[in-house]
Amino acid sequence: MRTTKITLTEQEMPTSWYNIQPDLPEPLPTVLNPATCKPVTPGDLKAIFPMTLIEQEMSQERYIEIPDEVQDIYRMWRPTPLHRAYQLEKALGTPAKIFYKYEGVSPAGSHKSNTAIAQAYYNKKAGIKRLATETGAGQWGSALSLGCCLMGLECKVYMVRASYEQKPYRRIMMETWGATCIPSPSKETNSGRAVLAQDPDSPGSLGIAISEAVEDAAGRDDTNYSLGSVLNHVMLHQTVIGQEAIKQMEKADAYPDIIIGCVGGGSNFAGLFLPFMPDKLKGKGMRIICCEPKACPTMTKGPYTYDYGDVAGLTPLMKMYTLGHSFVPPRIHAGGLRYHGMAPIVSHLHHLGLIESMSIHQTPAYEGALKFARTEGIIPAPEPAHAIKVVIDEALACKESGEAKTILLALSGHGHFDLSAYNEFLSGNLQDYEYPQEKILKSLAALPKVT
Amino acid sequence: MRTTKITLTEQEMPTSWYNIQPDLPEPLPTVLNPATCKPVTPGDLKAIFPMTLIEQEMSQERYIEIPDEVQDIYRMWRPTPLHRAYQLEKALGTPAKIFYKYEGVSPAGSHKSNTAIAQAYYNKKAGIKRLATETGAGQWGSALSLGCCLMGLECKVYMVRASYEQKPYRRIMMETWGATCIPSPSKETNSGRAVLAQDPDSPGSLGIAISEAVEDAAGRDDTNYSLGSVLNHVMLHQTVIGQEAIKQMEKADAYPDIIIGCVGGGSNFAGLFLPFMPDKLKGKGMRIICCEPKACPTMTKGPYTYDYGDVAGLTPLMKMYTLGHSFVPPRIHAGGLRYHGMAPIVSHLHHLGLIESMSIHQTPAYEGALKFARTEGIIPAPEPAHAIKVVIDEALACKESGEAKTILLALSGHGHFDLSAYNEFLSGNLQDYEYPQEKILKSLAALPKVT
Repeated sequence: MRTTKITLTEQEMPTSWYNIQPDLPEPLPTVLNPATCKPVTPGDLKAIFPMTLIEQEMSQERYIEIPDEVQDIYRMWRPTPLHRAYQLEKALGTPAKIFYKYEGVSPAGSHKSNTAIAQAYYNKKAGIKRLATETGAGQWGSALSLGCCLMGLECKVYMVRASYEQKPYRRIMMETWGATCIPSPSKETNSGRAVLAQDPDSPGSLGIAISEAVEDAAGRDDTNYSLGSVLNHVMLHQTVIGQEAIKQMEKADAYPDIIIGCVGGGSNFAGLFLPFMPDKLKGKGMRIICCEPKACPTMTKGPYTYDYGDVAGLTPLMKMYTLGHSFVPPRIHAGGLRYHGMAPIVSHLHHLGLIESMSIHQTPAYEGALKFARTEGIIPAPEPAHAIKVVIDEALACKESGEAKTILLALSGHGHFDLSAYNEFLSGNLQDYEYPQEKILKSLAALPKVT
Repeated sequence: MRTTKITLTEQEMPTSWYNIQPDLPEPLPTVLNPATCKPVTPGDLKAIFPMTLIEQEMSQERYIEIPDEVQDIYRMWRPTPLHRAYQLEKALGTPAKIFYKYEGVSPAGSHKSNTAIAQAYYNKKAGIKRLATETGAGQWGSALSLGCCLMGLECKVYMVRASYEQKPYRRIMMETWGATCIPSPSKETNSGRAVLAQDPDSPGSLGIAISEAVEDAAGRDDTNYSLGSVLNHVMLHQTVIGQEAIKQMEKADAYPDIIIGCVGGGSNFAGLFLPFMPDKLKGKGMRIICCEPKACPTMTKGPYTYDYGDVAGLTPLMKMYTLGHSFVPPRIHAGGLRYHGMAPIVSHLHHLGLIESMSIHQTPAYEGALKFARTEGIIPAPEPAHAIKVVIDEALACKESGEAKTILLALSGHGHFDLSAYNEFLSGNLQDYEYPQEKILKSLAALPKVT
């Protein structure tokens, strides 16, 4: 009997997160205070983050223990399955072995819950009563709503308007878990009002929504801010994915030649590939491919430079690939990939040449997703659809060359709330957005000057 | 470390289905040909079913082997997890131990895939190219679309109009898997046109949609009909649920005092409890509670008598609890529970006093579902929400009495496509429907005369 899913018992779930920082060949560039351009201090961050997360952000410890209470919640859906994509392989006629690590089994439907639970936990421990956050596609907002609900915190979500309108079910899901969700830009913050004054019909962006949530958190003592990607501690929490995948690949007696995932802020894919990085640094020749949308090609087209994480310039300055913090990406369905920047850790590894990047249009991404759904059953979210397209291309290249490569895909979540996009695709009405060169040049011209 | 999910390996998945028929204390009443009122013969059924399924319908074999190709597909999501509901128990402050067997991990989101894959397989083996079916809430239509897609068959789904309008995402899901889905009553069949002539705004019912699908299948040589519940072979295929649950409860060192599930046609709950029935017949005192909506109280209010499975009287006459085949239930959100009849096997066991029934309004069902979502994370479908309400009541009774009973819940699927109903509930706009006595008396008056 062939094994389709490689499962782990709850006893095999990792009990620590893996921190890449001590293993980096060069340390991460310094993060700067946006007001002074001096290195940011823990004190600069404590208005919006609990001290434990600030420590994790800067930690040089290789392993950080996962608190028991967080492990208890993780076990509601973790360890997540690793699947062998036999049906897809057969349909492609490829000798390649395709595996996918599926995070869609969490109640919120994606990998985001891994950090949401941890962040809600540490904030509760610090005496915080309420978290404010942004969400793009709604995956992160849902996950934090769940995390806050399970930890007994209030939750306020600023949801990028383009997604808020496309995905009403995501709002209801957040409300089902007791959160409040409003479209961003909103009239409730200075940042939101400033954008609306310039463009009353603004579709919003993650950069704008982050500004709103940070402003909300900074203005209230009982409230902290929570970010669903980009930051080091978020990458850290996601490493449960890759640690499990390593054990599962071992059980399948396999090792990846290529690891492929989508990147918006970078946390889902980093969560999968970071635990493999020590092998790569020791000389294992695997390729690691980051897939991003052509409409928001941060790593494939952007410079590696200091920028803000949000549109209003409230966050620290981080060195990263960026299209400029004022860039508002076109309304592609993969809301989670509509971000101007990229996690400093992912950017750093890319800059060092340890990982690659590619950009993909959404129509071929949906073609890949449809093939996946019709063979593997699972209907993927639009974000990993971009990675699936690249997996299929690599598998077809193997068919051409006769190589039986082992491919590992980060399948970050399901597309149950993205079916209107499938409807558009199936009815032939899905459009692609060309590389928005002029808008990007304009936003790059507005990059902060860091000396 | 406490264990939250009791998982099984793929090697522990059952390789046979369990057939209750040889273990019944009295045989099932004879099924009758609707035209002659004589016992139905295999030949009567072969216009719309493949012979293997007809044989399973009448089989007296205790175990029927699951074909390898069906097992291969099952392993895409099976074995499904058994969860211990620690967070719900804690929130209720009950000494009861609550377990739930969760079928929502299938790509189509419910238990329905267990029989969909098997039915598509046997039809393919019989040379059939296309299946026609009905769907209520969309769970069954989605599952059969997936089954047909994976087996390479065409699929036509007649979807009850009330649900078709409430749940557009379900239609898109079916189309993503390549099926065609239209609202029922439709103008494409005589049965549909007859209903529309009487009531152009008919919300439809499972009984009407079944008539349309049976008529479609009977009229084309390349097409068979596929039913998602009620029939013996459907109950049979669902017994993988209960067989897994028995092994999982053993691993948890527990045994259920009460098993609770929702019943529409009866297959999800039968799938869970039938494999426990031999213990019950040997004298184990466990209670088995079937939960149905007050708006469609088949077992709690209907007579046990011969009736058709569909509104047009095309199906065989089966002895079952029924509200009359012409009864159109109110538009409750639990579309899967809007059925006038009940599986003959479930009806028979109820008539013999081996299982109980209760009816529940949808508002308290959603109250229970919300408590479940806010403690266990998973957002339940409206159908099992009815069972969750009864689980909570039983757990609170344990709190009162101090008894630490073990409760096992059939959590048949998730509510990702039912969030508009949660929205209605959260905004205080959900209404209950009183027992529709007059309509039921009228439809009972139209029961067929069987001598």
